[in-house]
Amino acid sequence: MKLYGYWRSSASWRVRIALHFKGLAFDYAPIHLVKDGGVQNSEAYRALNPLGSVPLLEFEHGGRTHRLSQSLAILEYLEEAHPAPALLPAEPLARARVRMLAELVNSGIQPLQNLAVVQHLKHVLHADEQAWAAHWIARGLAALEASVAPSAGRYCVGDAPSFADACLVPQLYSARRYRVELAPYPTLLRVEQACELLPAFQAAHADRQPDAVPS
Amino acid sequence: MKLYGYWRSSASWRVRIALHFKGLAFDYAPIHLVKDGGVQNSEAYRALNPLGSVPLLEFEHGGRTHRLSQSLAILEYLEEAHPAPALLPAEPLARARVRMLAELVNSGIQPLQNLAVVQHLKHVLHADEQAWAAHWIARGLAALEASVAPSAGRYCVGDAPSFADACLVPQLYSARRYRVELAPYPTLLRVEQACELLPAFQAAHADRQPDAVPS
Repeated sequence: MKLYGYWRSSASWRVRIALHFKGLAFDYAPIHLVKDGGVQNSEAYRALNPLGSVPLLEFEHGGRTHRLSQSLAILEYLEEAHPAPALLPAEPLARARVRMLAELVNSGIQPLQNLAVVQHLKHVLHADEQAWAAHWIARGLAALEASVAPSAGRYCVGDAPSFADACLVPQLYSARRYRVELAPYPTLLRVEQACELLPAFQAAHADRQPDAVPS
Repeated sequence: MKLYGYWRSSASWRVRIALHFKGLAFDYAPIHLVKDGGVQNSEAYRALNPLGSVPLLEFEHGGRTHRLSQSLAILEYLEEAHPAPALLPAEPLARARVRMLAELVNSGIQPLQNLAVVQHLKHVLHADEQAWAAHWIARGLAALEASVAPSAGRYCVGDAPSFADACLVPQLYSARRYRVELAPYPTLLRVEQACELLPAFQAAHADRQPDAVPS
């Protein structure tokens, strides 16, 4: 398998967590989102992924090359193709809860602060992209804290890591980049600390990727 | 089951399609997103759903009341709890493709043009919210057309309706509201026409809901 990604793309990071957690070997193909106007916008990359987004997972199956984009679709595919160790609980209502929390990040926060959007705000609207990103991240994390707190175990849902944790950890990293005050989200911070002890989360961390740029 | 929704919320609409398609009875509780600053922002509604979004599905199970937000998490739950008729294909790669296309709309387009975002653009940034919404919708639909065209059957993936179609149809309605030119997306328009013949899609249409406001 080959993963096209970018070190601090939070959606790429989610997929790295799943691949490492499941012990799946993969080649990592960095797509530099900033250099030369963004490699993701090149004709060559858009031929692979029309939206020009990362991550993109490429693999062979049945004699054909398949390409999947959209991080949660990739997580679901990996879960079905390689069910153990699991990143979804067995019980339907717990599965639903995991997916709800993952989507709260995936569709409720991240799209509003991704690179294409903050670049548009800055260069086209000449607006304060930092304030914009911080506004939507804080609003989303407040809802996530309120949703997670009543039923969290060691992780977002119970005592096993899941899609929800794979979404949470990169989102908190991004929150710090945009200088969002995290003290109001004690449950999220506690879960993040638990995740940071897991080898898969350590290996997937943005700063540990070959294309990482030291700050 | 009780569905909190809003007639032209595209995420509510997706869930209505699934409920009707699977023949599940439900009560519909309209949440007016505009009147009085938006009922979704009331303390009473945020106690049910901290993000203040629609849809929200409420149901009893095992002697407890459960509430699920996030439309794709709800679709996955309905699919697991009521698998027939199916809105996901059986084959893993086809399932992955459906989820990828659904996420392209769910996280790639809709969050950038939802009500909270266009209101923020208009009232806080004093920007042209119509141009903003049209920009992101057209960008996303171009990627969706390029992704769907090579492998579409009667519907987005093969000849059975799926999550992808439940996301596509409301997104095209929204595109027309924001005056996006749809001629460049002939495959999407053809699939929409096929969906419009299905009773579940007809019953779920925004204009057929009790809280619809005639234009």
